Amino acid sequence: MAEFLASELAALGAEVQQRPLGKQPGKEHLELPPVVIARYGNDKNKRTILVYGHYDVQPALKEDGWSTEPFKLTVDNHGRMYGRGSTDDKGPVLGWLNVIEAHKKAGVELPVNLLCCFEGMEEYGSEGLEEFIQSESKSFFKDADAVCISDNYWLGTEKPCLTYGLRGCNYYSISVSGPAQDLHSGVFGGSAHEPMTDLVHILSKLVDSHGNILVPGIMDLVEPLTEEENSLYPNISYTMDNLHESLGSQTSIHPTKEQTLMARWRYPSLSIHGVEGAYSAPGAKTVIPAKVIGKFSIRTVPNMESVDVNRLVFGYIKAEFAKLNSKNTLDVWLQHDGKWWVSSPKHWNFTAASKAVKQVFGVEPDMTREGGSIPVTLSFEQATGKNVLLLPMGSSTDAAHSINEKLDKRNYIEGTKLLGAYLHYVAEEPTKA
Amino acid sequence: MAEFLASELAALGAEVQQRPLGKQPGKEHLELPPVVIARYGNDKNKRTILVYGHYDVQPALKEDGWSTEPFKLTVDNHGRMYGRGSTDDKGPVLGWLNVIEAHKKAGVELPVNLLCCFEGMEEYGSEGLEEFIQSESKSFFKDADAVCISDNYWLGTEKPCLTYGLRGCNYYSISVSGPAQDLHSGVFGGSAHEPMTDLVHILSKLVDSHGNILVPGIMDLVEPLTEEENSLYPNISYTMDNLHESLGSQTSIHPTKEQTLMARWRYPSLSIHGVEGAYSAPGAKTVIPAKVIGKFSIRTVPNMESVDVNRLVFGYIKAEFAKLNSKNTLDVWLQHDGKWWVSSPKHWNFTAASKAVKQVFGVEPDMTREGGSIPVTLSFEQATGKNVLLLPMGSSTDAAHSINEKLDKRNYIEGTKLLGAYLHYVAEEPTKA
Repeated sequence: MAEFLASELAALGAEVQQRPLGKQPGKEHLELPPVVIARYGNDKNKRTILVYGHYDVQPALKEDGWSTEPFKLTVDNHGRMYGRGSTDDKGPVLGWLNVIEAHKKAGVELPVNLLCCFEGMEEYGSEGLEEFIQSESKSFFKDADAVCISDNYWLGTEKPCLTYGLRGCNYYSISVSGPAQDLHSGVFGGSAHEPMTDLVHILSKLVDSHGNILVPGIMDLVEPLTEEENSLYPNISYTMDNLHESLGSQTSIHPTKEQTLMARWRYPSLSIHGVEGAYSAPGAKTVIPAKVIGKFSIRTVPNMESVDVNRLVFGYIKAEFAKLNSKNTLDVWLQHDGKWWVSSPKHWNFTAASKAVKQVFGVEPDMTREGGSIPVTLSFEQATGKNVLLLPMGSSTDAAHSINEKLDKRNYIEGTKLLGAYLHYVAEEPTKA
Repeated sequence: MAEFLASELAALGAEVQQRPLGKQPGKEHLELPPVVIARYGNDKNKRTILVYGHYDVQPALKEDGWSTEPFKLTVDNHGRMYGRGSTDDKGPVLGWLNVIEAHKKAGVELPVNLLCCFEGMEEYGSEGLEEFIQSESKSFFKDADAVCISDNYWLGTEKPCLTYGLRGCNYYSISVSGPAQDLHSGVFGGSAHEPMTDLVHILSKLVDSHGNILVPGIMDLVEPLTEEENSLYPNISYTMDNLHESLGSQTSIHPTKEQTLMARWRYPSLSIHGVEGAYSAPGAKTVIPAKVIGKFSIRTVPNMESVDVNRLVFGYIKAEFAKLNSKNTLDVWLQHDGKWWVSSPKHWNFTAASKAVKQVFGVEPDMTREGGSIPVTLSFEQATGKNVLLLPMGSSTDAAHSINEKLDKRNYIEGTKLLGAYLHYVAEEPTKA
């Protein structure tokens, strides 16, 4: 993918580099995929916009339940383009390339200088990128006047939004091990402590069925809701029907859109993702797994500092395991973390994007936050000291990270126009805030 | 495997048939693997022994942690023969074939008529076999004077045993489903009921860390321990060191060998095997799975009737799920069951086997029960009305169902001699009990 992107950019006339990020930590035989950086235009009289995207995707197997081959783009007769990465984040990345190509073909000069930063480890915590952004902040990225990231989604399916906040994510693993190898449950069931039994007990202590995090102290870290913030939610264009449509079910926790958006944007959540090491295929296997690794993540919000969350999580899990009085061995560790981010939507970067939405879609965008985490947002803000804007292309029904991920043709085509229009309005904005 | 077995048996001079068992229930596009039946010898003046084995094996992948290719027999320099099915149950099946071959090569007539029944669905509940045994009990199997099954293990590594009891196994699945597809945990975490959260809560209510089954009423079904039975355990050749060696760890629940053997042989146990539908690979995937299926089994003992166990399990799980007050949907069903079995070790079938052990190994065998389930044992007993003997070949360290399953050369060679000697003593036993 890096080779492909680099050659496409070069063919468009950009100066391109593939920059190594070193070895993958803990897997020293593996090179991290390179970050592809590019410059298009170098006019001192123009603003310079730094755009970010990623060319890696979530894992996908046909047998996970995809209706189509996940790694072959398949367009249905409603214009839905199915494929892993279609909306997250290959479609938006290609959007930027399309903008350059369209300007070239139309003979119109790009009104800004463009800096591109396309990475290949976003779905694994952007390993190595933060150091890279930091080290290039005073060299390759030094001219950037603002940053634009297209790697999130509209709240619904009709109305575009600009995003000024994100939750963070702390991803944890809990391993429980006992015997030296998997055991026959007939022979050893009842006479040996079973790691899987201990693990489900621990996992059941993390969160309740209604999404309440059970780790003591976590909720005390959350910034209290002010009257002013509370007043913003009723105006957002979103309904419980939108939620139920995205879910494909009525299994929502909260009764109102306001509570739902707050649960997504400004409160933490805890999800249990799965178990590594136990039998996971269809059918019946009567084995006691020797070592199992439970995986869960906590979506973080202001003012949860990762170090505090870790301390509470580790202490609680170890205390709960001690209560089990098991002879098995437990370990718990942070697999990766990314901090939450909240920015100002009054900056000219947002104003320009807002005008672009009006131009292309004929409506004012909603100003939103998001539940997902894009840790590089914060990295770019801190390293460049410039405003960062999230300008989504895909819609809420795109099923990012799920089976049957898609991007609608409308979102891809109008979204490409949006990215182009944004660059024109950015060039015209009078004030540097 | 069926083709291979049938051709090997035919080459030895047996009359062989591959008998279809119909379609796999619920998967009507799949034929069940055939049962291979054979007759070797047809002398009215000889006893006829029916032997059973299975040519299917547990699933195995190199990446489960095997040190060798699981489907390539690999012998190390201690004579340990590694490979899936080496001890469970391909080695013992080949043992019977070796006995015929050795008699042929030595020019010694086999002292009994041999009937073979080798199936291919043992690891999946012997689907279709019970009906087959029943229907052949008055035809192909009608001459059988006794049954011998070599499909279990010595208690330790040095002393052979004869087995007269087995636990049964009820295998259950619990599915919890909510949204129509997997969800991004950043977007939906905190605003939708998560199936995995509900599932771990339910699984944590089944069994505690010390192996105590938490489903109310289950323990009331268990036959009380008598003084007589209690007095048998101290004499069995088994130590806590044997257990710890098999486990490869010190993670035993009970402090004494007697409690350990009772937990294995005469009390039920409950093991949680895994979760289907959740993320199970290494690494980090931030997905909320839409539907997860938890799998567990209960090892059953006298006098637990499957129908009673099911009623208690289903009722309890549904009641616990109702307490969660979740909008998700739960289902629980029995995947398969096999009844426990206890026989009389005073029959001539056992006496003959006991003499064979003395002949080949120079010791008296322990009379044992087993924790695992071999449901066909009961099927053969009920269908033929004859005594059934379990005559194991492998040892306790063979790691059946686990990674690095093996059979020691000593057990394979002396075990083959044991099967042969057994047929000679069976032919000599004076009384038909």
